[in-house]
Amino acid sequence: MPVNRQLKLARRPEGRVSLEDFTVEEGAPPQAPDGAVVARTLFLSVDPTNRVWMKDVPQYMPPVAIGEVMRSGGLAEVVQSNLEGYAPGDLVFGMTGWQDYSVLKPGGALGLAKIPSGSGLAPEKFLGVCGPNGVTAWAGMIEVAQVGPGDTAIVTAAAGSVGSAAGQIAKIKGARVIGIAGGSEKARKLVDDYGFDAGVDYRAENFRVQLKAATPDGADVLFENVGGEIMEAAISRLNPRGRVALSGMISIYNGKGGTRYDWAPIMAKRLKVQGFNLIDCAELWPRAARELAGWVRDGKIKAEETIVDGLTNAPEALNMLFDGANVGKLLVRVA
Amino acid sequence: MPVNRQLKLARRPEGRVSLEDFTVEEGAPPQAPDGAVVARTLFLSVDPTNRVWMKDVPQYMPPVAIGEVMRSGGLAEVVQSNLEGYAPGDLVFGMTGWQDYSVLKPGGALGLAKIPSGSGLAPEKFLGVCGPNGVTAWAGMIEVAQVGPGDTAIVTAAAGSVGSAAGQIAKIKGARVIGIAGGSEKARKLVDDYGFDAGVDYRAENFRVQLKAATPDGADVLFENVGGEIMEAAISRLNPRGRVALSGMISIYNGKGGTRYDWAPIMAKRLKVQGFNLIDCAELWPRAARELAGWVRDGKIKAEETIVDGLTNAPEALNMLFDGANVGKLLVRVA
Repeated sequence: MPVNRQLKLARRPEGRVSLEDFTVEEGAPPQAPDGAVVARTLFLSVDPTNRVWMKDVPQYMPPVAIGEVMRSGGLAEVVQSNLEGYAPGDLVFGMTGWQDYSVLKPGGALGLAKIPSGSGLAPEKFLGVCGPNGVTAWAGMIEVAQVGPGDTAIVTAAAGSVGSAAGQIAKIKGARVIGIAGGSEKARKLVDDYGFDAGVDYRAENFRVQLKAATPDGADVLFENVGGEIMEAAISRLNPRGRVALSGMISIYNGKGGTRYDWAPIMAKRLKVQGFNLIDCAELWPRAARELAGWVRDGKIKAEETIVDGLTNAPEALNMLFDGANVGKLLVRVA
Repeated sequence: MPVNRQLKLARRPEGRVSLEDFTVEEGAPPQAPDGAVVARTLFLSVDPTNRVWMKDVPQYMPPVAIGEVMRSGGLAEVVQSNLEGYAPGDLVFGMTGWQDYSVLKPGGALGLAKIPSGSGLAPEKFLGVCGPNGVTAWAGMIEVAQVGPGDTAIVTAAAGSVGSAAGQIAKIKGARVIGIAGGSEKARKLVDDYGFDAGVDYRAENFRVQLKAATPDGADVLFENVGGEIMEAAISRLNPRGRVALSGMISIYNGKGGTRYDWAPIMAKRLKVQGFNLIDCAELWPRAARELAGWVRDGKIKAEETIVDGLTNAPEALNMLFDGANVGKLLVRVA
């Protein structure tokens, strides 16, 4: 008999997340109601937004309630279908949550989408560079920042799944690209593996000096994932009329540091600062995902994954994002 | 013999500005070099940006140097011309500075422009609602915020020259408009004289309650002139994907309060926050000024002026902006 393990939020974590913040319940898998499927989780997508969903603060979706299964995007295999067009064996993307089996149906924020077969790509790519992370990068660079030839673009958290895609998209669009990442190894990797023009290590003592040297003519675009001092350093390099695509501010999600940053440069340099989120991107998703899959197949975008094994390791895996311990897309393999 | 009085910046003021921060020098009027005119200042435009120019901080133009004539826009009458197309008697707008006579030539930031004759409007309107202030309002509401029918727009410093124009433009474009101003009299004036849907007094103890009541469905656009707590209160009312046209942050210009405000709502509500400034608006200026003059003539936009007499009262006049002591465009009559 298959067992459905479920990680339910037991308390709101302060700072780091641990398995003790959850209760682990075991039960029978659910049955599919009309118009839905039951799917077995293969991979969980580990994203900064998971951490925000655990917090009882104003945000773009309601926080996960105490006692509720932890919310998460995932890649899953349909095991039972009461939904036209879906059959057992289909691979799907949906809000699986931190559990072995979930009921998925179309609609809502990123409700349910079939992973295209015959793409020639490993299915987990559709959780990362051809899925939410790549589409986020595409939306921020192309729709929000409108990056183009002649631009210099700075990307923070550049070795991550979103950041590495964002930088490579900017290169494809003709920009000069500088990535900021934690550690000299990651900074080097940005140049050697992802084709950035320069990589800057925010942990280096002379970080600001390095960043200035890498942007002798300033910068026109900032793709921002981090917030805090790193963001402020990047903003200090922006030229007048620079564009900030605010994809996230991971530095604030686990409660360290404040959220109050300088607004004076927005005025003095007439910057455009725009927050954006996948939940507003339903319309452009298919176009972006298709273009991304093409770039990945053609070798124009490289993407890596860091895979952690085991559902109950999901809480610890989430901490890796904040420690900068992953390279590329962070996944938890569940089955 | 005409005398040219010049107010030269003697020291950088802290907080309020006074005549003692300047030396007043008297000398002969200048002669017009080739390609320029000499013009006699009639009115000075008193703007928050004057205060910023006195400060040695990063900004969109270099600060006024110690010993330099204080920079200011003004309305002037040509008295001598070595510039084709300009003759004595022509009324012009230019960077006259705080002095009786200035050398003006085309080019640069708001260098020199002829006030159209035959407009049927008093020439000082072209220093305000049909000039820099109105064009600022037009650019922010129409180009940056793209206000339209169905939007609710909040305007701060709404009784001022820029704010009152911004609110009336939003009304013309079909929006519901809420103005924030200092004092119940000004708040009432927004509704009675300028046709706003509601006016809210930021000095009232229940300011936030009033603001909430005036925006039962939230707001979609914020035309921001003030910064600080008033801005944060307005941002708290913005709906997802709201647009903030950041025209200025007067609350920070004389050094009171900080410039660090919350960035979390930009991300959580996916706001677009865009700083903008007239110096980037050369292209749209003629179109905006023509449209504004039409609206003023047709009575669709009302504009008032507060006039202070005497060049040497310019420093004290500037303080009025920060005290909220003016209604509409603040001018200093020089001649």
